[in-house]
Amino acid sequence: MPDARRWFALPSPFPMKRGGALRGARLAYETWGTLNAAGDNAVLILTGLSPSAHAASNAEDPSPGWWEDMVGPGKYIDTGRWFVICPNTLGSCKGSTGPADTDPDTGEPYRTDFPELTLDDAARGAHELVRHLGVERLACLVGNSMGGMCALAYLLQNPGGVRAHISISTAPQAQPFAIAIRSLQREAIRLDPNWNEGHYDDAHYPETGMSIARKLGVITYRSAMEWVGRFARIRLDADQREDDPFGVEFQVESYLAAHARRFVRSFDPNSYLYLSRASDWFDVCDYVPRRPGKDNTAAALRQIEVERALVIGVETDILFPLSQQEQIAEGLRAGGAEVDFVVLDSPQGHDAFLVDIPRFGAAIARLLGSL
Amino acid sequence: MPDARRWFALPSPFPMKRGGALRGARLAYETWGTLNAAGDNAVLILTGLSPSAHAASNAEDPSPGWWEDMVGPGKYIDTGRWFVICPNTLGSCKGSTGPADTDPDTGEPYRTDFPELTLDDAARGAHELVRHLGVERLACLVGNSMGGMCALAYLLQNPGGVRAHISISTAPQAQPFAIAIRSLQREAIRLDPNWNEGHYDDAHYPETGMSIARKLGVITYRSAMEWVGRFARIRLDADQREDDPFGVEFQVESYLAAHARRFVRSFDPNSYLYLSRASDWFDVCDYVPRRPGKDNTAAALRQIEVERALVIGVETDILFPLSQQEQIAEGLRAGGAEVDFVVLDSPQGHDAFLVDIPRFGAAIARLLGSL
Repeated sequence: MPDARRWFALPSPFPMKRGGALRGARLAYETWGTLNAAGDNAVLILTGLSPSAHAASNAEDPSPGWWEDMVGPGKYIDTGRWFVICPNTLGSCKGSTGPADTDPDTGEPYRTDFPELTLDDAARGAHELVRHLGVERLACLVGNSMGGMCALAYLLQNPGGVRAHISISTAPQAQPFAIAIRSLQREAIRLDPNWNEGHYDDAHYPETGMSIARKLGVITYRSAMEWVGRFARIRLDADQREDDPFGVEFQVESYLAAHARRFVRSFDPNSYLYLSRASDWFDVCDYVPRRPGKDNTAAALRQIEVERALVIGVETDILFPLSQQEQIAEGLRAGGAEVDFVVLDSPQGHDAFLVDIPRFGAAIARLLGSL
Repeated sequence: MPDARRWFALPSPFPMKRGGALRGARLAYETWGTLNAAGDNAVLILTGLSPSAHAASNAEDPSPGWWEDMVGPGKYIDTGRWFVICPNTLGSCKGSTGPADTDPDTGEPYRTDFPELTLDDAARGAHELVRHLGVERLACLVGNSMGGMCALAYLLQNPGGVRAHISISTAPQAQPFAIAIRSLQREAIRLDPNWNEGHYDDAHYPETGMSIARKLGVITYRSAMEWVGRFARIRLDADQREDDPFGVEFQVESYLAAHARRFVRSFDPNSYLYLSRASDWFDVCDYVPRRPGKDNTAAALRQIEVERALVIGVETDILFPLSQQEQIAEGLRAGGAEVDFVVLDSPQGHDAFLVDIPRFGAAIARLLGSL
């Protein structure tokens, strides 16, 4: 299989925020375009929970990436102008070091002995990669969903290190609804006997738990409104139905099943647990002194230094509600940035940035064009 | 334990809409107040999926019911004036015949050999009970959530049989988001090895599946907005936490766990599966001739004959969205009823009718007072 990934060795040991350190850890990443002589045309993309570094096709790997229509020559993020970098998140299972990798101290896979992971660690790893690639200051930092939280961490860790920021369908910290959903996804995996405290293998794999987790993800990534138009109450044809009163009967059920099938064996369950919990833990307030009983979110966001920012939210997003993107926009503005806050009525909910490319792309291209 | 339930023997055999029949089936029910000589003060309450017939305390059972502050002498549904009837839904496990009961043909519990259940069957059972109690015409039919769908079936089955209708947080048919959620709840139960195709017992009980199903229910019954105010990102005290990076840490997680603990062993898993699937299947359009490719919802609702109606919806309800209550209100109005459509901004989502009693009660008392 073609593979455009490169690997970057993180400093070793790489200390982790909640304790412990990784030895010999690495990040997988891909790039598109060329860094110019001034080193001022780099765009870093930080991803959601499950995508790989393969945001788009390139010469080494012509297969379509997860943001294929967004990134490329002449596209909204124009790789003719920009040097685009996309790492696989630290702790993931798409090339970067994660729980499925070998612990050099034991010669065995880390599994649940992987140190507790935070998005702050992931952001620090991404920054090490950026420096390694010779970039002193990013022209633009783009973060989607979980990657948007990593981006906020990156900005708070590196004052002056980013010129412009694009924040998409993300939040300054998880709200209880999102925590509840993710907690239930983790519970479905952990209660699957095949999870076995993290000691599964291909023959004994927590397929049930992963399937429930993925379906619940898909339900919260899309929107009820989209599904009314898309599935209504359409039934499968009789010959596609299971002969079981509780089996798949409605189209929406087979849609969820297809999503689960594609995901279940392609993502490491322990990695999923680590990244999911890291998303719950993330809080911009960790970057400012605690004030008991006070909400520090605005104070934390105000510390971020960027010249320009684009914050995009979607009205139908139930996982990262619009009010949280508004909070980010206001915080960045209070910190001195010139901010465009773009509200889209895309029906695709949280996933809209993966689907409604023309509208997200137009806003993104507008910001990049202003730099 | 005190028990105010009475039992009504359904006609035997009791044929079921999707085929098969029940022999020797019965409904558990409770009543409050007294039927007057004219027989025109009866109020029938049809419940959501999980409640019992014990809507409120009474002389035989002083324990608080699930609508304790709504029903009683001098309360919003004033049992000094009204003769209130609340049956446990056919197919449930709180006294009415359901999958946990003995099949007289085999002497064994029905389990998954219970006939396919529909809310139309449940409505027909409730109507048999009403006739048995000597009521020709209900003064008012109240339906909440799943019970609201049963109520629509009752109205469509019995033209002229109801003077006024109160429809609360319900829908003329399930939308795909609700189907998806319920499908996933059923899957969690069915994939639990202890479900064992319905052949569980107390020692081998699908506790995991029921717990996941209940937690997912609670997440969709409430609203993200309510939880921001109620739980924010508050952590449990260190001594209440599990020593596990994936264990319960946030208050919202322990809230879900407490809900699941209370529910898991108190509701029959097979009964849950049957009622859940019946909720997906329900469609008012079954009561009018099919017109391929056309939406018959308005045409079906227009056939309902009541003098007055109150339709209540909650803006934060994600399971039965407000647009569906609006559809019901418009349909009843088109059918000739005088309709009050009340939109509440209660933060408690779908569950608001169980919590925000003052506001629901005021609207209900207003309608009942007009009769």
